[in-house]
Amino acid sequence: VPPIVTLLTDFGLVDSYVAEVKGVLLSMAPRVELIDISHDIAAGDIRTAAYVLGRAWPAFPEGTVHLAVVDPGVGTGRRALAATSGGHYFVAPDNGILSSLPAGAQFVAFEAPPGVAPTFHGRDVFAPAAAALANGTGLTHLGPIVTDARRLPLARVERRGESWHGEVIHVDRFGTLVSNVLPPPDRAAGASRVRVGDRDIGPVVRTFADVPRGAPVAFVGSGGTIEIAVRDGNATRELGVGVGAPVVVTIPKV
Amino acid sequence: VPPIVTLLTDFGLVDSYVAEVKGVLLSMAPRVELIDISHDIAAGDIRTAAYVLGRAWPAFPEGTVHLAVVDPGVGTGRRALAATSGGHYFVAPDNGILSSLPAGAQFVAFEAPPGVAPTFHGRDVFAPAAAALANGTGLTHLGPIVTDARRLPLARVERRGESWHGEVIHVDRFGTLVSNVLPPPDRAAGASRVRVGDRDIGPVVRTFADVPRGAPVAFVGSGGTIEIAVRDGNATRELGVGVGAPVVVTIPKV
Amino acid sequence: VPPIVTLLTDFGLVDSYVAEVKGVLLSMAPRVELIDISHDIAAGDIRTAAYVLGRAWPAFPEGTVHLAVVDPGVGTGRRALAATSGGHYFVAPDNGILSSLPAGAQFVAFEAPPGVAPTFHGRDVFAPAAAALANGTGLTHLGPIVTDARRLPLARVERRGESWHGEVIHVDRFGTLVSNVLPPPDRAAGASRVRVGDRDIGPVVRTFADVPRGAPVAFVGSGGTIEIAVRDGNATRELGVGVGAPVVVTIPKV
Repeated sequence: VPPIVTLLTDFGLVDSYVAEVKGVLLSMAPRVELIDISHDIAAGDIRTAAYVLGRAWPAFPEGTVHLAVVDPGVGTGRRALAATSGGHYFVAPDNGILSSLPAGAQFVAFEAPPGVAPTFHGRDVFAPAAAALANGTGLTHLGPIVTDARRLPLARVERRGESWHGEVIHVDRFGTLVSNVLPPPDRAAGASRVRVGDRDIGPVVRTFADVPRGAPVAFVGSGGTIEIAVRDGNATRELGVGVGAPVVVTIPKV
Repeated sequence: VPPIVTLLTDFGLVDSYVAEVKGVLLSMAPRVELIDISHDIAAGDIRTAAYVLGRAWPAFPEGTVHLAVVDPGVGTGRRALAATSGGHYFVAPDNGILSSLPAGAQFVAFEAPPGVAPTFHGRDVFAPAAAALANGTGLTHLGPIVTDARRLPLARVERRGESWHGEVIHVDRFGTLVSNVLPPPDRAAGASRVRVGDRDIGPVVRTFADVPRGAPVAFVGSGGTIEIAVRDGNATRELGVGVGAPVVVTIPKV
Repeated sequence: VPPIVTLLTDFGLVDSYVAEVKGVLLSMAPRVELIDISHDIAAGDIRTAAYVLGRAWPAFPEGTVHLAVVDPGVGTGRRALAATSGGHYFVAPDNGILSSLPAGAQFVAFEAPPGVAPTFHGRDVFAPAAAALANGTGLTHLGPIVTDARRLPLARVERRGESWHGEVIHVDRFGTLVSNVLPPPDRAAGASRVRVGDRDIGPVVRTFADVPRGAPVAFVGSGGTIEIAVRDGNATRELGVGVGAPVVVTIPKV
C-alpha cells in the first residue's frame, strides 16, 4: 500500500501553486497517494485550517503524512515543524495550524534547504519534508525535538451553575453553527436548553428531522459537539450569528 | 489494478467532510483509487446530482463504485441503498439520486451500523458500504433486495405533430442549456427549427462554429441531446432562460 | 510507478465534464495516476491556462502526460496537438495553451477518431491521446510532426536606459501581481525602484516580512520574476491594477 499524503492549504485551485507542491511530492516520493483535504481555506485563516485539519486527520489510516500550509508568516523567522501523533505525521509552519494534535505529540523543527527563496515554502520547504517522511525518513532525522510548538488559544467552555458557556467555533458550508460545547447525557437531552446569541433554540434533539422545516434545531454534530442548524435552511444567515457567537447550554438536574 | 471509488456530494471543499469520507474509505479499503466527480452540487440539489452522476458514471471502467451523497433527508427514515448496473456499483441515500440507473439495475437496502450518529451518514454509513463493495463484498451481502427505489419524475418529451416539446434539464458551467430532446436525423437537421422559451434559435447545426460569435446556436451536445448555447457567450444569461424552460424542436417531413 | 496524467481545463467542477474525461482516461489507461492542475480557469481564458501550465509542468517527474483543454475553438478546424519536451508529454488544442514549451519541443498533429462529435474533444479526442501516451505509445505514432504550433504573443520586456519596462502577466489568488520582469542582481536590489501602474513600490526586497503590514512590497516571486504584493493584503484590489498594467524596474548602475 503506498503512503498517503494529505494536503491542506489556502492556495486555491486557480493558480499553479497546489500543482507545483504535488509535482514536488510525486518527484521525490513517486509512489505516494495524494488526497486533498481543502485548498479553499480563506487566505491566512490559520484558525479554520487548524479546525478542519483536526476534524480530518483522525479519519485517515496510520502512517498518513498531513501537509498543512496556511502560512502568512512565510519569509519571517517562524519555524518549520514536523510532528507525529498516533502513528500520523504532520508537516506545517509553526503558527498554530497543528493545534489539534494531542498533548503527547512529538515535534521537531527543521531548516529550509540552503538557497531556498523566502516566498513559497509550501513547495520548497514543506513538500520535501513531507516526501521524506512518506519515504520513511524518521521524524528526528529532520531536525531537533522542540517542545514549544505554537498552539492557538482554545475557545473555552465555562460552567456557571447548570449552564455551560461556549461559542461557535466553525460555520460549515451548509451554514450550520458548530459549537465547542459537549452534549448533555442522553437522559438529560430532553430537558436541556440551547441558546445561540440571544436566540433560544430549544432542547438538544436527535437530528434535524425532529423539527419542522425552517425551524432552528440543536443536535449533536458529527464532530461530537453541539451544533445549531435551521432545517432545510442556513443557520448563520437566518439567525444572523457566526464564529465567536456565544452558545449557552443549560442542563437542569434530572 | 486497484478498484476505483468515485465521489459525488454537496459537501463543498471548505469543510473537512469530504476528507473524512475519504479517510474512512482509505482506512477500510487501502488500495482504492478515489476520483471526485463533484462536491459542488448546490446543497440538497438531488436533481442536479442525479443528472451529473448519470452523465459521469458510464465513462468509468466496470467495477467502479460510485458513492453519491446529497442527503437532505439524513436522520429521517429514508433508506440507504446499494445498487449494481452494467458492472458498476452504487451507494446512495434512497432519494432519487440514482434515477439514471437503467430499468434492469438491482438494488438492496442496508442498515446503518449500530450506534451511528444521525447526522453524517456519508462518513458513517455510505462510505463503509462503498469500501465493502470495493473490497469485493457481494451486493446482496449488504442487505435485502428492494424493488421500489425512489426515482425522480422524468422530464417528459411530448410529440405534437411535427414538434417535440421538452425542456431545459441542466445548465452547465458555460451557461449552455442542455435539453432532454433527442436530435433529428442528420438529413433533417437543416430543415429543423429549435425554440427555447419564446426565442427562435434556428435549425440544429453541427457545432457552435457554424454561427457567428455572439449568436445563439442549437446543436447535438456531448450527452446526446439538443443543447442551446451562445457562441463565445453564455446562453442562460443572454437568453434569460434556465432549467425548466420549454424547448420545442420542429422537424418538417423531408 | 504508474504514469501520471495531469489535467488543466476550464470545465469547472460543477458539471460531469471533468469526471467524464477521467473515466475515459482510467478506462483506457487503468494504472494512471490523475492529478488536477486546475479546472477553474475562466471559460476560454487560454492565456491564463498557458501561464498556469507553464508554472506547473516542470515540477512533475519526467514521463508525466499533461492534458490541457481550454478549447473555445472546439468544432472549428483548429488542430489537435501532442508534444514532448524535457521528457514530459502534452496533449492540447492548437491555440497557444502550450506556449510555455521551450523552443526545442517536438509537436505532432493528430486527427479526431472517426465519427466523434464536434462538441467535447476533451473527452473524445484529447483524453484518448493522453491515455495512449501514458500507455507508452510513441509521440510520432499519433500523427505527423508539425513545426507551426500556435504560440501566444509574449508580453515583452523592453530596456530603456536603466529601466526595464514589462507588465503584470498574472494575478494570483492572494491578489499578488506577477510581472514578467527579471530581478536585479542581489547587490543592486537595494538601489532598485519598482513602479506598477503609476504607483511607486520602492526597492526589490527579500520578502513581504521586510515591510510593515498593509504596505506594498516588491520581491522576487516563486516563478523567478518580480512580484508586487501588499503585506497581509490584496495588491490587485488595493493598488487597483491587474493583468496588463505596466511594471517598470529601475536599477541604477552600482
